[in-house]
Amino acid sequence: MIPTRLRKDPVTQRWVVISPERADLPAPGPPSRPRELSPEACPFCPGNESQTGAEIYVEREAGTPANRPGWSVRVVADRYPIFRIEGGLEKHAEGMYDSMNAVGAHEILIETTDHARHWADLEALQLDRILRVCQQRCLDLRNDLRFRQVMWVKNYGLPASVFQHPHSHIMASPFVPRVIEEELKGFGEYARWKERCVLCDMVKQEQRDGQRVLLREGGVLAFAPFASCFPFACWIVPVDHAHDFGGAAAGVRRDLARLLPRVLGGLRQVLQDPPFTLVLHSSPLAEFAREEYHWHLEVVPHPPHLLGPEWGTGIFINPVSPEGAAERLRAALASSEARPT
Amino acid sequence: MIPTRLRKDPVTQRWVVISPERADLPAPGPPSRPRELSPEACPFCPGNESQTGAEIYVEREAGTPANRPGWSVRVVADRYPIFRIEGGLEKHAEGMYDSMNAVGAHEILIETTDHARHWADLEALQLDRILRVCQQRCLDLRNDLRFRQVMWVKNYGLPASVFQHPHSHIMASPFVPRVIEEELKGFGEYARWKERCVLCDMVKQEQRDGQRVLLREGGVLAFAPFASCFPFACWIVPVDHAHDFGGAAAGVRRDLARLLPRVLGGLRQVLQDPPFTLVLHSSPLAEFAREEYHWHLEVVPHPPHLLGPEWGTGIFINPVSPEGAAERLRAALASSEARPT
Repeated sequence: MIPTRLRKDPVTQRWVVISPERADLPAPGPPSRPRELSPEACPFCPGNESQTGAEIYVEREAGTPANRPGWSVRVVADRYPIFRIEGGLEKHAEGMYDSMNAVGAHEILIETTDHARHWADLEALQLDRILRVCQQRCLDLRNDLRFRQVMWVKNYGLPASVFQHPHSHIMASPFVPRVIEEELKGFGEYARWKERCVLCDMVKQEQRDGQRVLLREGGVLAFAPFASCFPFACWIVPVDHAHDFGGAAAGVRRDLARLLPRVLGGLRQVLQDPPFTLVLHSSPLAEFAREEYHWHLEVVPHPPHLLGPEWGTGIFINPVSPEGAAERLRAALASSEARPT
Repeated sequence: MIPTRLRKDPVTQRWVVISPERADLPAPGPPSRPRELSPEACPFCPGNESQTGAEIYVEREAGTPANRPGWSVRVVADRYPIFRIEGGLEKHAEGMYDSMNAVGAHEILIETTDHARHWADLEALQLDRILRVCQQRCLDLRNDLRFRQVMWVKNYGLPASVFQHPHSHIMASPFVPRVIEEELKGFGEYARWKERCVLCDMVKQEQRDGQRVLLREGGVLAFAPFASCFPFACWIVPVDHAHDFGGAAAGVRRDLARLLPRVLGGLRQVLQDPPFTLVLHSSPLAEFAREEYHWHLEVVPHPPHLLGPEWGTGIFINPVSPEGAAERLRAALASSEARPT
């Protein structure tokens, strides 16, 4: 089998994960809602800690032993990681084509001990813990010089989600994903032209205008963006310029923890408990960091069924190698054309 | 109601169609397969010509009257167009935000009189007619100086398709869609660096290597691209460099008409009659045209359920205005917070 590697599209320069280990054929037919797992069978529920990998990071009651109950937020390695922590990038050319190892991190943030809690019903204290843990992971992962971006993606109620228990994905990639690259370009051009930040200007105009604002909580504003690609998409933006979520002040984080359940509660009410995706957009790391970037969260209810991380991060994961696809298609062509008609 | 307009994202500069006339709320739950319509009820079947708008272009038996049976391929206006032919662009600023009218064309190409024919079962002669008609529409639409791009998108078996009868969409937009812009940048950079075309180089390497090739038919090659974003995606490329499908020679078109049913037959066999999307990628028009571009077709089976034109063209159509979304969400927030807890 062709091993999982990152491959670069020679035209658009987009990195794609070609991962034949992940699956065989895509399932035909429309996707379905996630199957429900009872708390007893749920690997993210307290008491079942041994069913996940060891804790990478945790907030737990003083004195409780690792990988046992007593935690409030827990980070473990993903069982089927898109990116793997081991090894070097081993960049390689195959004629004009470039590939490298899918080196990176892929962690699961288990957000609460409560198997079936909606974010709209979380206490601000617990949400602040989640955000603090996420921030700590961002700060830790940036110490690995192979990584160029840390991503945080939460999917709720999507067909691809196997687990109902509240959780999200933290990933680090050895390249800057296309969605961030596109935004960086926009922030950079606006900064060179106007000597201001485009998102700071948007925040000011939205507050003056008011018709697209949902609410403001201290230093954080939620609004429906002017050229929103998706119905009821919301951006959640710190009012004061900051390029990096990792460096967000405790006060901003607490405002965010108060604002998020209200926004998600509003979406739940208007759209009758829709599935949603929430994605952190923050500056790339190290020499790819740009002060002109302005970090923010994007929430999309009923996200188009580009499942899993593809939509949020712009990273495509293809479980069928192009060589394998071509081989099967050639065989089909040969067999159908050998058949008498 | 807020009228349909194109709005530009101030960060990424992407144009989005905000079209509150199209729908109210997105339907919850997963999409379903298209409902079947009998030939009697099908507006695209012969005898039902009066149920569509008048013919914009047609290939029909000599002597048969317009908008009556006797046609083999027929082009009519879409009943629910994304782009409308009337009026000027009326570019407008709202503070820092830009918008313009959704001026353009949106036509339906009715591909055969046969209500239930799969492209894999079409005769090469009929497919050549389809391609010729498509080419004629490309050549005609470019005379309108408001348009920067002509797109051709065929969806088969997708949940969004209302009509089973073989048809496709021809659209002209007053901006260059993001997917084409991204490719143009890649073609341009490669041409400046190498003084060659990146897709010509890919065609040569694919033929030398062979493992990703499906088949070659005269001047046209089908292969699975090296960094394919989607399982079993295929590119269909003229072997000799040409930037513009509108200018394709009759010989290339005939090779394409022979190759397409075989590729789609292979996909049908390997993936058990999958839904698919087929998109023409061709150079933009007029002063936006680039000789370094290399036109091609992209076929994606089981396309991610970014329905309709969004996936293929990178043009997002949002049926809920951000102002309307914010209004409803604010009302929900106010009502839930007024409630005693």
